Amino acid sequence: MPDNLTIIPPRSGVSFLLKKGQRLKVVDIEGEQVSDFVCYNLEDKGEVISSGRTIDYAETILLTKGHPLYSNRSNVMCEIVEDTVGRHDFLLTPCSADTFRIIYGHTQPHRGCFGNLCAALEEYGISPDAIPISFNIFMHVTVDGNTGKVDVLPPKSKAGDYVVLEAKMDLLVGLTACSAEMSNNYAFKPIGYQIEE
Amino acid sequence: MPDNLTIIPPRSGVSFLLKKGQRLKVVDIEGEQVSDFVCYNLEDKGEVISSGRTIDYAETILLTKGHPLYSNRSNVMCEIVEDTVGRHDFLLTPCSADTFRIIYGHTQPHRGCFGNLCAALEEYGISPDAIPISFNIFMHVTVDGNTGKVDVLPPKSKAGDYVVLEAKMDLLVGLTACSAEMSNNYAFKPIGYQIEE
Repeated sequence: MPDNLTIIPPRSGVSFLLKKGQRLKVVDIEGEQVSDFVCYNLEDKGEVISSGRTIDYAETILLTKGHPLYSNRSNVMCEIVEDTVGRHDFLLTPCSADTFRIIYGHTQPHRGCFGNLCAALEEYGISPDAIPISFNIFMHVTVDGNTGKVDVLPPKSKAGDYVVLEAKMDLLVGLTACSAEMSNNYAFKPIGYQIEE
Repeated sequence: MPDNLTIIPPRSGVSFLLKKGQRLKVVDIEGEQVSDFVCYNLEDKGEVISSGRTIDYAETILLTKGHPLYSNRSNVMCEIVEDTVGRHDFLLTPCSADTFRIIYGHTQPHRGCFGNLCAALEEYGISPDAIPISFNIFMHVTVDGNTGKVDVLPPKSKAGDYVVLEAKMDLLVGLTACSAEMSNNYAFKPIGYQIEE
């Protein structure tokens, strides 16, 4: 594992600043663990990553090294500059208490990545409604091109796999160790990250 | 064509209220024409349709009769109750000046469905940043399940085809006759709609 790795404990989330030109390395420490990533323009937090714009401009739902992540204003917020896995999701919203209630039938649901992101970003004035569709690092979602069916499979990431995102503007970042059973092959593990200058 | 059809002229958009229980019929008058649909909770406009939540709960990207459209707060905003086509898109953002600049290379781009929705919804206090990924009625987007590649093909809708959405809460609706060449097989046509009690 890299030195200076900050650990996000299982089923939790953090927020931090990532300045233009800095690189964020997100490491799957034990393997098969998803990390939901969201970011905001630090100077104007109404600008936020947009799955719809990113997929439209990339012309693919499978984003990997070389792909920029665009904002709702069609500006490049960051770029994937390293990726040892090549399989991530940008279709689904962060798991939430509603996810666990609706999909899993839990009666006392966990707050999920959505709740963890809300809590982590609250100090920066981000409201729950302002949490967008996240870039779900290591999440393995398949789409059947004929039927449209969406399936969540165990991540392809193994221990030590990583993704590096380079900021193209000053960013506020939210990042989680995902809380949803299916997304992480029914085990909750930590995620590591570090900021590289 | 149905009586009392209101016409949205080519490359334009409208906004209107749709009360709980009312049904919105969206008609492709000439065929092969896309209509971008967005909606907000009339009582609290921070609540808006969410592609990520809807696809997650439906477990498919192909939404049709019987599928509810969920909000960012995981409430059902409306439901598709009739659909003579069965092929629509909920992955891509409304076309915009940036779309035409980035994808089409236009130097004096049209404002697109995004600009038309902004203009139509401004009187209700909706800001451009609050325009979500739209439910793109009649838009024919394919996803290659293996490569992830996304393609925009001519709509499958023929003259007179329609979709009916039933409101499950009081809604503010934005609706367009889409402005993007690829989406409409390189012809710009009107869209018709009517509200049924």
